[in-house]
Amino acid sequence: MKIGLVGLGRMGAAMSQRLRQQGFDVAGWDQNANANQMSATTGLRIAAHARAIAAESDIIISIITEDHGVRHIFTGSQGFLSGDVAGKLFIEMSTLQPMTGRELAPLVAAKGARLIESPVLGTIPQVRDGRLVSLVGGAAEDLERARPVLEKMTRRIVHMGPHGCGYAMKLAVNLGLGSYIQALSESLALGFKQGLSLEQMLDVLQEAPYASGWLKSKVDVIKGAKPDMTLDIRTLRKDIMSVVATGALSGVPMPQSSGTLAALSAAVANGYGAGDLGELPKFLRESMLQNFE
Amino acid sequence: MKIGLVGLGRMGAAMSQRLRQQGFDVAGWDQNANANQMSATTGLRIAAHARAIAAESDIIISIITEDHGVRHIFTGSQGFLSGDVAGKLFIEMSTLQPMTGRELAPLVAAKGARLIESPVLGTIPQVRDGRLVSLVGGAAEDLERARPVLEKMTRRIVHMGPHGCGYAMKLAVNLGLGSYIQALSESLALGFKQGLSLEQMLDVLQEAPYASGWLKSKVDVIKGAKPDMTLDIRTLRKDIMSVVATGALSGVPMPQSSGTLAALSAAVANGYGAGDLGELPKFLRESMLQNFE
Amino acid sequence: MKIGLVGLGRMGAAMSQRLRQQGFDVAGWDQNANANQMSATTGLRIAAHARAIAAESDIIISIITEDHGVRHIFTGSQGFLSGDVAGKLFIEMSTLQPMTGRELAPLVAAKGARLIESPVLGTIPQVRDGRLVSLVGGAAEDLERARPVLEKMTRRIVHMGPHGCGYAMKLAVNLGLGSYIQALSESLALGFKQGLSLEQMLDVLQEAPYASGWLKSKVDVIKGAKPDMTLDIRTLRKDIMSVVATGALSGVPMPQSSGTLAALSAAVANGYGAGDLGELPKFLRESMLQNFE
Amino acid sequence: MKIGLVGLGRMGAAMSQRLRQQGFDVAGWDQNANANQMSATTGLRIAAHARAIAAESDIIISIITEDHGVRHIFTGSQGFLSGDVAGKLFIEMSTLQPMTGRELAPLVAAKGARLIESPVLGTIPQVRDGRLVSLVGGAAEDLERARPVLEKMTRRIVHMGPHGCGYAMKLAVNLGLGSYIQALSESLALGFKQGLSLEQMLDVLQEAPYASGWLKSKVDVIKGAKPDMTLDIRTLRKDIMSVVATGALSGVPMPQSSGTLAALSAAVANGYGAGDLGELPKFLRESMLQNFE
Repeated sequence: MKIGLVGLGRMGAAMSQRLRQQGFDVAGWDQNANANQMSATTGLRIAAHARAIAAESDIIISIITEDHGVRHIFTGSQGFLSGDVAGKLFIEMSTLQPMTGRELAPLVAAKGARLIESPVLGTIPQVRDGRLVSLVGGAAEDLERARPVLEKMTRRIVHMGPHGCGYAMKLAVNLGLGSYIQALSESLALGFKQGLSLEQMLDVLQEAPYASGWLKSKVDVIKGAKPDMTLDIRTLRKDIMSVVATGALSGVPMPQSSGTLAALSAAVANGYGAGDLGELPKFLRESMLQNFE
Repeated sequence: MKIGLVGLGRMGAAMSQRLRQQGFDVAGWDQNANANQMSATTGLRIAAHARAIAAESDIIISIITEDHGVRHIFTGSQGFLSGDVAGKLFIEMSTLQPMTGRELAPLVAAKGARLIESPVLGTIPQVRDGRLVSLVGGAAEDLERARPVLEKMTRRIVHMGPHGCGYAMKLAVNLGLGSYIQALSESLALGFKQGLSLEQMLDVLQEAPYASGWLKSKVDVIKGAKPDMTLDIRTLRKDIMSVVATGALSGVPMPQSSGTLAALSAAVANGYGAGDLGELPKFLRESMLQNFE
Repeated sequence: MKIGLVGLGRMGAAMSQRLRQQGFDVAGWDQNANANQMSATTGLRIAAHARAIAAESDIIISIITEDHGVRHIFTGSQGFLSGDVAGKLFIEMSTLQPMTGRELAPLVAAKGARLIESPVLGTIPQVRDGRLVSLVGGAAEDLERARPVLEKMTRRIVHMGPHGCGYAMKLAVNLGLGSYIQALSESLALGFKQGLSLEQMLDVLQEAPYASGWLKSKVDVIKGAKPDMTLDIRTLRKDIMSVVATGALSGVPMPQSSGTLAALSAAVANGYGAGDLGELPKFLRESMLQNFE
Repeated sequence: MKIGLVGLGRMGAAMSQRLRQQGFDVAGWDQNANANQMSATTGLRIAAHARAIAAESDIIISIITEDHGVRHIFTGSQGFLSGDVAGKLFIEMSTLQPMTGRELAPLVAAKGARLIESPVLGTIPQVRDGRLVSLVGGAAEDLERARPVLEKMTRRIVHMGPHGCGYAMKLAVNLGLGSYIQALSESLALGFKQGLSLEQMLDVLQEAPYASGWLKSKVDVIKGAKPDMTLDIRTLRKDIMSVVATGALSGVPMPQSSGTLAALSAAVANGYGAGDLGELPKFLRESMLQNFE
């Protein structure tokens, strides 16, 4: 089976390697020439554009940053749907707004092809070990067709419901992630201004009932160690903006997520966008406080 | 050694039992007559008022809900400091604003007595098993004097720094707790409006990197089971309001905690104040959403 | 010229009267039977459904509450576009999200008809006096065709730009309205808790640099007088939710509007939805405060 | 009558000139040497420190930026209360937290002197013309003693109540100011991203029911003109932080003001602190938006 993969960023590049290791014939493409070159050095065959990827593949995976970009990959002049895609299966793995999934599905169907969404829980290490969790939205039979590919990358595949439900679940998870890191930022800033040290606080916070393995894994980055980049602040901000938009369109007020979004936006405005989300507490502590003399 | 205990709510009552089981001679008092009666039926000796408690005890513990109440227990006309308290040690265990601790300490010292603060992590089960975590603010020598008592209730005692630092750390922890439960509420409401079921969502959220034992322990309450009440929404709201006040007084903007506070305030206004915090998601889902058609 | 009008709520009913007074032949319809009856008693001819309105009219005005409803009026089974509407002009006057306008325009065009949006500034008195301000989005030539009708209801017509721009401007205005009333609510609650009286505060607030005629007009309602209902809290909430959604979809963080939305949502949850927006301060003061004893 | 004036910033310097023009004998001091020099060039007699000001004056005015600074002016080693101040009257005119006023009053009384607070509405032009509005907190008889001085600077003097009430009213007014400018920022950013021009939007916003003279006066600055500096963003941020702190300490949740505070804090973090508040919309529009390509 031939697999095409559009989006060769950190996640996409890792997936292309995993899938080849698992025996698939994979071709890739990214709109960024550097990303293409990087993947080419690992032996990945690079196509000319998204349409070319679709033309030569049975199953086409896309994993890029945001909704406008994904729409363009599908509907742009050299996008997937600009060629003959009858009979093909698209597995869209980005973190998008549910409405984007519900908008793309009929466009794909109109070309005689099928689409499922499958955003995932997990980052690079989980890709490498095939231990992602897949959150699928779309028809059950399309998921069955995708399963042999998804299984090689995941430890669990959950069918959430029709199109949009997979993205909704992914946003619900990332909402909590943004909340967790911003709560930590506010906690540490509060304690800092009250005379506590970062070490003391991180020690005690690991005693909190809601302490998690993730907090433990971020402690060194929060203390200032160089991060093994997983999710950057700009991307998390985009996800939380999608959360707030989806919430508002559905009739859900989001007072807390809106607060998180304001903080993330301020961090990006201050040049922290490319930083790991474990660096967010530093931004609050160093830039947002009011100092009296 | 004789121990006095003011505040016979859920936590105070459990402490009075634990301390007696550990061999201390304990007398108690609460401003609420019912609470006194309830504790009397467990065999606790009840005194006439806070001053009487202080008069007959070497070490006096207080654990009540909020700052105004604690100030009154110390400085009211029948309060601790209305009698001769020279040489006594006060262990204040409520969850207060740091400034309240820094305000009370010199008043106590002026009467020849000593004060440490020791808010705790943990609830009723941890009191019963002596497995609380104590977050101490005050002088090291006063902590040493308190240690034989605190040790019977805790698995760990952390000296955070001078007066105020214990409260600051406790607020920093509860900030995260409020954030966690409100984030969960927003997640579940978002997914609910997008067609996901509570069961599906709680299942997947336990796969999130930031999942915790606490989330697991709350799953049944979130699904609708009767809670084994630990922290009620009204009290958590009071804590988050203290977080926001302490933050603002210290120069820390708290966009996320302010969002959480708005949500908790709305829940209390709707009559959810006495509910367990695991019932917060239900409030958002059932009352705050906007319904069209 | 025959005019059809769908939506016979407060604003629609007033418009139907104004237009008849100005000499137009007007027929109306509302999905709510009571609204139809009420307007019938004023002499308005009532049609069977939206499609029937479109069938018999040259120009069709719609003014209802929210986006889902408007979509249904256009695309539902008895909606405008279910009949032959070639050559007709639709003037959509509701307060909607810009994306809704951009979504409807091509659907209308595909049926050989034209659409402009024209949300308005002003309420019932301005309708009666023909002193609304019209914020038009759509093509200039379609505005010219609508002008003879719009002119009878407005003192000013502003062409904001293509489809969506009129709605965007209206949302931008209502954002400020929501902000103003919630700011006033927070001001008054703050002063109230600090010992100031409502009378004192409203007096001084009219000295503020940002005081406006609108504040002056609301002073009696804020003090408790029965409102001459203009905009209810539920509808303002819907507008602010549209603001937040449109903002997030466009990449604009809205920390303040999100705070306003949280407050309005709490008010609706507490049963204040049908109240005039001048009643919002009462809700905050009476229901959202934390009381210490 | 001899008047002392501590705080020779923009407002204090203008007041020192106004009072001398009105025939008072005035001496001044500021902790900033440049401010002293600047005022000396206008002919103001400069004293050595705050205590020296109090020593030579009957009535002592203070007008500086924030609470810690004012506390220091009164209780510092060279502060007002470090000398003999029996019989003197202090008029504190800064914008402070009510609790600061209630904290200082008994300290002043203990030294045999009197204190009223009189924060004001208005900026430099109103000082020059004696057209401020004075919001007085403190005892009525002390206000009578201050009146001959206050009258020369004000068009209206309102006795709000006991100590703290004047500050509370001033914070309530500035809450609205912060809200107004941030609402405008969010409005303009929303419209901007939807394709509207600044000129169009500012034109229409002046048609809004809540439009004010203040908005009109800020239009040119918002469009990019160099401001005639009145209130800078950093100071407004401090005021809104005082609003949030006072609210939380009083039991008032402030979801909207907290959103405003987040935005102002982000602006200060980005280097906009010294800007006029009319420059806030530019910050949101240029730095906080998320751009998709």
